[in-house]
Amino acid sequence: MKSRSFELLDVTLRDGSHAMKHAFTVEQIRQTARGLDQAGIGYFEVSHGDGLGGSSLQYGLSKVQELQLIEAAADVCENSKVSVLLIPGIGIKEDLQDAVKAGAKMVRVATHVTEADVAAQHIALGRELGLKTVGFLMMAHMAPVEKVVEQAKLFESYGAEVVYVTDSAGYMLPQDVTEKIAALKQSIGCEIGFHGHNNLSMAMANTVAAVEAGATYIDGSLRALGAGSGNTQTEVMVAVLERLGFNTGVDLYKIMDVANEIVAKFMQRPQEITGSSLIMGYSGVYSSFLLHTQAAAQKFGVDERDILVELGRLKAVGGQEDLIYDVAQQIALARV
Amino acid sequence: MKSRSFELLDVTLRDGSHAMKHAFTVEQIRQTARGLDQAGIGYFEVSHGDGLGGSSLQYGLSKVQELQLIEAAADVCENSKVSVLLIPGIGIKEDLQDAVKAGAKMVRVATHVTEADVAAQHIALGRELGLKTVGFLMMAHMAPVEKVVEQAKLFESYGAEVVYVTDSAGYMLPQDVTEKIAALKQSIGCEIGFHGHNNLSMAMANTVAAVEAGATYIDGSLRALGAGSGNTQTEVMVAVLERLGFNTGVDLYKIMDVANEIVAKFMQRPQEITGSSLIMGYSGVYSSFLLHTQAAAQKFGVDERDILVELGRLKAVGGQEDLIYDVAQQIALARV
Repeated sequence: MKSRSFELLDVTLRDGSHAMKHAFTVEQIRQTARGLDQAGIGYFEVSHGDGLGGSSLQYGLSKVQELQLIEAAADVCENSKVSVLLIPGIGIKEDLQDAVKAGAKMVRVATHVTEADVAAQHIALGRELGLKTVGFLMMAHMAPVEKVVEQAKLFESYGAEVVYVTDSAGYMLPQDVTEKIAALKQSIGCEIGFHGHNNLSMAMANTVAAVEAGATYIDGSLRALGAGSGNTQTEVMVAVLERLGFNTGVDLYKIMDVANEIVAKFMQRPQEITGSSLIMGYSGVYSSFLLHTQAAAQKFGVDERDILVELGRLKAVGGQEDLIYDVAQQIALARV
Repeated sequence: MKSRSFELLDVTLRDGSHAMKHAFTVEQIRQTARGLDQAGIGYFEVSHGDGLGGSSLQYGLSKVQELQLIEAAADVCENSKVSVLLIPGIGIKEDLQDAVKAGAKMVRVATHVTEADVAAQHIALGRELGLKTVGFLMMAHMAPVEKVVEQAKLFESYGAEVVYVTDSAGYMLPQDVTEKIAALKQSIGCEIGFHGHNNLSMAMANTVAAVEAGATYIDGSLRALGAGSGNTQTEVMVAVLERLGFNTGVDLYKIMDVANEIVAKFMQRPQEITGSSLIMGYSGVYSSFLLHTQAAAQKFGVDERDILVELGRLKAVGGQEDLIYDVAQQIALARV
């Protein structure tokens, strides 16, 4: 068996926040964290789905303040370390300082794939605070390989120890993952991570492609709990990587038990590939566009799928929500 | 776009019978069949989950007699053709003759991967009746490549026009699929098919591997409805194959609508990767062993996963259910 050559990072308690409508309780966090710790997970993430400071009317109010959740998670761990996500503009430096006081040992600073430059100060602060510091390139499918390499180099220059390729929309296919991870492997010195979503039923295959191309950090969530169609399913990933001859350092039965005895019992709905999540993966549009798209579809009497496909073609990004209504109107007019 | 180079065969109304506890109604069949027909699916399968004649105390009684379901499906189709599954020993030749009278145009004669020889007469009958006739090698992960080739050649010699590699337990990984399909491509003249299950979250990647290695028949089911963790999800497959540049001949929105507006509404439970289905994919044991294994685990106070993993190592096959209790007892004794 190959020696443990990567970190399997569980994001149930952060990406899962989206699927839980940000309603995690202290007890859910405590039980899941204890299970992850006992199963041998190195790092797991706890934050609002949109990262530190995400609790707001715009991104959804958390039921329990996230610092309390981070503290509860850190409290029960003997070996696992708690990571937090920070999207500059949503979270601020003070949030990170507070998270460290609550017990966080890793920060992942996340930006759109073309905007790594907004993360310089937050990366520097992570290092200053003694955290394992990660740069997280979201919506990585939207940029060509060279752009991803350029942005990863920026992250590295700011002090990131790991750079992630993040398939936020679940759009990527294994060949795209292989190309991007392999290019990073050749171009940067720091470690490389991959975070997948399952909108096209390819999260597991993408994850294996990432590992085979040289990624040493990979994300998963228990029972796939996460945004859209959910993430690469952590306990399944452990089984698949074992079958491929990797030593994950994670106990398969114990990680299955956390998934099936704890997480499955508090999930609000199963993580299926539904109509909306499939079309988002197909068009490469992030899930935050969905509610507006549905409203626009109704207003203009058009198929929401046509709007999403057109938004994907236009490479619309967060902040361009006005575009949704323009697109819907154009589709309606074109039909006349 | 590449021209349509394969048949996408939908098994919702046959493999899905397992997940529905064989309780399909005429109306469910009619609505789904009409949707499949309108979406442009070439063939879809209607039978008891264990094929013609499967309705029994041993395999589960069907709510509605399958000939009635086959007739209802054939009745509403303008272009799609109805396939039936036949496992020699469960179904008999008379069942096939009746199915043809009810409107079936294809038969898939299924045997364990090492037992193609029991299918000779049924394959011959299929041809005689003018059906598109397929040989279906179940549990294909249990035999090495050479054996699969040997058995496929038998099927071909009996008159099969297509031979399937069937990953009944959801155990296979893409490399295994590629090797087996590529070897068949080199060794036999008839067409090659692939049928996947999602126990390791690899059904879609396996399907793509099969197509890339030369398979021209691929199976899927709507919303993944099927045994274990379900099948390759048909509507997602259409999206992925389009993204890869194949012309599937299937209308993406229409197939999504059948999945989400019809099938999702009558499913008894979502198709998730649970503890049991994961461990079956991990160990390569077919789902029919599960109930006995759970009973044996309870009787001997051992973990059902240990039993399944050991059964997989022993390459247990259907009919060896007694072995389950022996294995459970040995695990219990070894622990003392």
